[in-house]
This record gives sequence, structure tokens and C-alpha cells, in this order.
Amino acid sequence: MSELDIYQKQGFGNRSGMGQRPALLIVDFVNGFADPDQFGGGNIGEAIENTRELLAEARALGLPVAFTRVVYAEDGSDAGVFTLKAPTLKILTEESFSSQIVDQLKPWDGEYIVRKTQPSAFFGTNLTAWFVSKGVDTVIVTGCTTSGCVRASVIDSMSYNFKTVVATDCVGDRALGPHEANLFDMEQKYADLMTSSEIIAVLHETTSIDTSSSQR
Amino acid sequence: MSELDIYQKQGFGNRSGMGQRPALLIVDFVNGFADPDQFGGGNIGEAIENTRELLAEARALGLPVAFTRVVYAEDGSDAGVFTLKAPTLKILTEESFSSQIVDQLKPWDGEYIVRKTQPSAFFGTNLTAWFVSKGVDTVIVTGCTTSGCVRASVIDSMSYNFKTVVATDCVGDRALGPHEANLFDMEQKYADLMTSSEIIAVLHETTSIDTSSSQR
Amino acid sequence: MSELDIYQKQGFGNRSGMGQRPALLIVDFVNGFADPDQFGGGNIGEAIENTRELLAEARALGLPVAFTRVVYAEDGSDAGVFTLKAPTLKILTEESFSSQIVDQLKPWDGEYIVRKTQPSAFFGTNLTAWFVSKGVDTVIVTGCTTSGCVRASVIDSMSYNFKTVVATDCVGDRALGPHEANLFDMEQKYADLMTSSEIIAVLHETTSIDTSSSQR
Amino acid sequence: MSELDIYQKQGFGNRSGMGQRPALLIVDFVNGFADPDQFGGGNIGEAIENTRELLAEARALGLPVAFTRVVYAEDGSDAGVFTLKAPTLKILTEESFSSQIVDQLKPWDGEYIVRKTQPSAFFGTNLTAWFVSKGVDTVIVTGCTTSGCVRASVIDSMSYNFKTVVATDCVGDRALGPHEANLFDMEQKYADLMTSSEIIAVLHETTSIDTSSSQR
Repeated sequence: MSELDIYQKQGFGNRSGMGQRPALLIVDFVNGFADPDQFGGGNIGEAIENTRELLAEARALGLPVAFTRVVYAEDGSDAGVFTLKAPTLKILTEESFSSQIVDQLKPWDGEYIVRKTQPSAFFGTNLTAWFVSKGVDTVIVTGCTTSGCVRASVIDSMSYNFKTVVATDCVGDRALGPHEANLFDMEQKYADLMTSSEIIAVLHETTSIDTSSSQR
Repeated sequence: MSELDIYQKQGFGNRSGMGQRPALLIVDFVNGFADPDQFGGGNIGEAIENTRELLAEARALGLPVAFTRVVYAEDGSDAGVFTLKAPTLKILTEESFSSQIVDQLKPWDGEYIVRKTQPSAFFGTNLTAWFVSKGVDTVIVTGCTTSGCVRASVIDSMSYNFKTVVATDCVGDRALGPHEANLFDMEQKYADLMTSSEIIAVLHETTSIDTSSSQR
Repeated sequence: MSELDIYQKQGFGNRSGMGQRPALLIVDFVNGFADPDQFGGGNIGEAIENTRELLAEARALGLPVAFTRVVYAEDGSDAGVFTLKAPTLKILTEESFSSQIVDQLKPWDGEYIVRKTQPSAFFGTNLTAWFVSKGVDTVIVTGCTTSGCVRASVIDSMSYNFKTVVATDCVGDRALGPHEANLFDMEQKYADLMTSSEIIAVLHETTSIDTSSSQR
Repeated sequence: MSELDIYQKQGFGNRSGMGQRPALLIVDFVNGFADPDQFGGGNIGEAIENTRELLAEARALGLPVAFTRVVYAEDGSDAGVFTLKAPTLKILTEESFSSQIVDQLKPWDGEYIVRKTQPSAFFGTNLTAWFVSKGVDTVIVTGCTTSGCVRASVIDSMSYNFKTVVATDCVGDRALGPHEANLFDMEQKYADLMTSSEIIAVLHETTSIDTSSSQR
């Protein structure tokens, strides 16, 4: 029996679908993760390029857009177990070039910038509260790495009961084995996998997208 | 360049080590996950057997021990996105045979039982607070599945700055590909991998284990 | 200058208003808090009676309804600092009469029962996730005590960006000084104060209440 | 029967005590809250002065020290319900004079600065994780306002099972009625009240304070 067969037999791998009020979450597409000599490589560059159109569509439709950056304090005061496992992360500080969001995806005013020190975009941040303030019911996830901060953010997004969609061509990883393995896990248990083209088509069909619930 | 080489070159895969006040966390070793006809299979049975000795040692040393169970309400009121992806999970209710911890690892009075509806043992639970009340600095993780609730719990354990150790022969999965892939991810970024024998050896050496900080 | 004047001058005390998708949260109206010889007294009995009509209206309109209970483990395993401050709380266990929701407000199937060990209905629970699954943007709070679990729940509700309304005649406390003092604090900083009659009038006017976003 | 009598009869108001590894938390002592024309007044100035000695002692003993600041984004992207209740809070941005920690209590390198948008120092922040990384079991709280961010932080500190102490002469409020009312609530249910002199005396006696568990 194949691994996929085992999951299907046990009842995994169903679709959770998309709701009426989607948001776009762009995880850690910062200079340091775009650079193969720092934390990048693999298919990350391609994923950044593919995210451009999805971001443009999200903006045209008025969807809430959130970005994450990894930001540690200059003085090392907030380093922890994650930086014991990967000490190089500590170069990602507020002002460092490596921690700035890539030029291709520069945030607009009113888009939400999450500063985080842990893998998940939701951990120790106000992202859940921000999505609540925007009436969000669905989170479309792009970013990197698939096997790291994307996976961690997807688990939390699903755990908070946001219907969660991974834009398969808009997530990337420094190594393709973990990329593929994590897409498998996420599809079986946490999120729907869709290409950015498929997502854009659904967004256009969902004529009833309600963006009126913003508090501002 | 191999995937491992890429991770090493970028600074991942270091050891976070063990602290002075470890706890044992046993994730979802319940009847339904021990049964290949429900959510089990693969190397889960073996992992349960291997956990017996580690649990006995932890108890002998007076370490805090916590167990998780997946428990949904009988009336379906707390079903959510996770049960859209895997509707079969809803059979795990307070009284169902499937959701009871396996006989081999029956909890003792004073050990903590976490009821959860999401993958992570920490999500929507008081596990962090319980570890704080016990002065815990290190979490040793066993359970299933490696690619599911173990992985999710390990991310959160590390994110809360508990030094985190995965007992490699005491975690199991219904399919071995995801098991191996997730061990790789966890070792590179979140946790140290050790066999239960290695862990027991360290626990015996750590003569200064301080179990005096319990509040009761 | 009066205390109210100071708050007004500094910019506090504005209204946050009600949104389109309110839910009703009923905090700790259990037998032990209805009994002046246990944790009750003051105006709690009256608040329970006043909540009956609000609950009936919420049900008639199909609003999501959540209840909280304080539930500690029989073996004391999850006692903590709260039970050092108030050891009597430990009598509230799953099966104890004291921890059952009062007969006048008996939950219906599909309404959400939050078991908690801490003051806030949101702390260490999945209440936020449940509200997300129901598309909630506004939380109407009743329950007891005003100066304890109501206040703590209101702070978290507001912090998660739910517009928060305290039903003034449906919250109660064992002592009236703290009741009044906490209503003042909540109105200045966290929530709007409205009587249940005022809330019901607004619910009837809000013809566009959208209860379609439930995931079930 | 007095209000205090009611609380005593019902089992509240016991002491939770201090543990072996205390930390100092200084809430929102920033310029804007030191200024009676912004968010200050009452006994806040006095509380800042009284915190100087406690901070000096904490530093001399090597205790972990954390500060909070309220920091909103310049573009208003993270405003929410709290800023609907109190729109003036939005002036507190990363670079604004009002949001800088007061000169008398200037943080040292390695001390932790929590940026927050909500009342509690723990909500949407990594403060719990930071305390875990330092092995903290007790949180000594100073800051302002007693009825606002101090109270909210104390509830969460206790909920995470940190033994919590409010330094009565080191917390302040713009109005004295709410200050006193919230000290009463906190003592009855969440924290021990001690003067800074009493705290310093205990810190000196606790010869076994263990500051070795820092991860750096």
C-alpha cells in the first residue's frame, strides 16, 4: 500500500475549501532568504517571482495582506533555542539588509508587517488579532521555507480555524526533498494545495468577497 | 551538494542540548493511533513499546510527565478545519475507546493529561503553564505521529524556548517516508535527536536534576 | 478634576461599537458561583436571571453561543498559582455539582463549552479558534464575576480585536465595590457597556447579521 | 459583612509566595505615561522613582529584567479595537518620544524590550518564551497603569503559573480610585502585594537564587 493510500484509507487528505474573506500571508520573503549564500537557494527565487502576480491580484481585490520578517534584537537579548539550532539567524535584525522584504514584493502602507523570532507567523505575534480585525476566514500562504516557517505558519493558521491554502508555486525551499515532503504533509492534514493560477481564478469567481469588515 | 550539506553550510543542525530540569511529553499514544485500522500502523507499535522504559526512568527520577489525547465534543461543537481535512478524527471523544491512552503507558495520578483538538500539544492548552509550574527547561518528546502532532508539538516547544529532544525510537508514524523527512527537519531546525538509551544515560549523569520546584 | 474627566481628557472611553457577526459568551455561570456559600452572592443571581432573555434572543437569531466552566482535574495535577491564591477553586471538577452550568442556562447541542483553569475564557482554550470558525467579529459578554473572569475575558476578547460589549445587567459579582470599579475600567479601555435591552434592540436592527459562515 | 470578609470566607486572598528564580517586569514606564498631559498623572511619577532602587537591586543580583513599551506602526496598519476605545494610543510609535522608556530606567544591553499593542505584556509577544529561556518562576511587576497594563500583565503572568508579586509602591495610575480597586482585586486573586523594600529584603535572603539557567 502506498503512503498516499494509507492516508486516504485513514480519512486524511480532504479539502477544507476557501471561505468568503481570504487574506494573503507572505512568509519571510526577505533578502537573506532570497540569497543562496545566506538562507536561500533551491526554488525560492522562482517562488518570489510567482508571488508577484498573486500579490497584485490580492491588492486589486482589496484583500488584507500580511508579510513576515525574522527580526532579532541587535544586543542578542531575544535569542533563544532557535538560535542555538541555527546561530546564523541572529544576523536578521531590524536594520540589516538580510531582514528587509525583497524589493519585488515591497509592502504598501496599511499592509501588516509581522516581526517574529520563531518559525510560525502566529507565534508571539498579533497576526491572529489582525486577521480577526479584518474579518478573515481563509489564509492563502506563500513564502519560504516550505519545510520551515511556511509549514509552522500553516499549522497555526489551521489550528486557529482559518481555512488555509498553500500556493504551491509561491512557496520555496533551499532543498527540494523537504519542500516536497512538507507539501505532502500539509495537503494530507492542514491545508489545500493550489497553484497561484487556480487561486486567482477562485478569487475572481468569489464575487461576494466581503472586504467591508475592516475596522478602519 | 547534498541537502544536508546545504543546511550545514547555512548554519543549521547545531545542538541545543539538554538543561537541568527535563520533562517527558508523550503525544497521542492512544488506542486509535495504536491501531493500523484507525490512525496507526508503520512503526507506531514499536515506538509505544520503546517508550515504556523511558517512561519508567522518568518516573523513577521524578520528572514531570505529560500525556496528550485528541478529544472532540460528542456533539461536534468544537469541530473545525482540522476535521474538514480529516473527518475521522471526530470519533476521538472523551469516552471513546480510541481516545484512551494505551494500557502500556497508563498515566499515574499527578501526571498531566492534555486534551487537545489541534496538532500541537501546546495549542489551546495549558501545557506551557504546567511546564512553568514544574520549572521545566527541557522537553523530551515521544509519541505519534512524527509527521503530525509530534512535529507540531516540537515546533511549539522550541518556540517557547524549551530545549527540545526527540526520542527517535519512541516516535512513530503510519508511513515511514514522512517519519524520516520530519526527523530531518526537526534535527536541522528545532530539536536534538537522541535514542531513548542516549537520553536515559544523560538523565542518569545529570545528577543535579532539580525536581524541587513543583508547586505542590 | 474627576477620575472620569481625567480619562476623557486623555482620550479614553470611546465606543468601539458592534459589528455584523456577534456571539454571546457566558462566563462561569455555574452552580458554585450561583451559591453565596461557595463563590457567589452579591448581584450574581440577578445577573443569571437577566441572562435568560439575552440567551433566548441570541438563540432565536442563530448567534454562536459559548459557555465557560472552571474545571480542575480530580487528582490536582493541573492546580497552579491560581489555586495557591484561592485553594477552594479545586472543588470545581468535571463531575462536581459546583462546576455544572446552572439549570436556567442549560447549553444546547452545538453550543461551545469552554473548560478552563484560569480567569480568562481565552487563556489555554480554543475559544478564539471557535469564534474564527463562526466568523465572529463581536463578543457580547455576560457572566461572573465582573471583577474576575469577566474582566479577564474582556481584556483578551478586545486584545484579539473582537469588538466587545459587556451586558451590564447580565454580569455580577460577590461584592458590589469591585463590580462597579471593573465596569468603569472596562468601559474606559476595553469594551462598550450596554444593558441587555439595548443589546437586544441592536441585534434586532442589525438585519444583516450573517450567520452563514459556520463551517458546519 | 465587608467585601474583604466575603473574599476571605470564600477562600481567596492567600499568598502564592516567591520562588527561587525571580525576574523583574517593568510595564510601560515610557515618557507618554510619565506625562500628566498625555497618559500620566496620579502617582505614576512616584512609582517611577521608587522603581529605580528595585531595578538597581535586580541588576546587582543578576535577575532577568524585561521592559514593555506600547508601539504601533506609523501607518496605522496594526490599530485595532484598543485604539477605537483610546485613539490617542496611536501616537506611541517606534520613534516617538512618548513611547521611549524613561531616562531614569534606561534598559541595559541584554535586558528584554517587549513591544506590544495590547494591555498585557504577554499578549502577542514572546515574553513567556523569554522567561522560560531564563528559567524564571516568579515575576515581580512594576509599572503603569495599575488598572490597565499592570493588571492585564499580572493576570497573564499568574495564568502562565509564574508566582506573581506586585511592588505596591512601584506601580502607579492616573487616578487613585482605580489604582486601589485593582490592587484589591490582584491581591485577592492573582498576586501577592509587597513593597519594594519587602521585596528587596526577600531577594537578599534568597541566597539560593539561581541565575545559571540563562541560555547565553
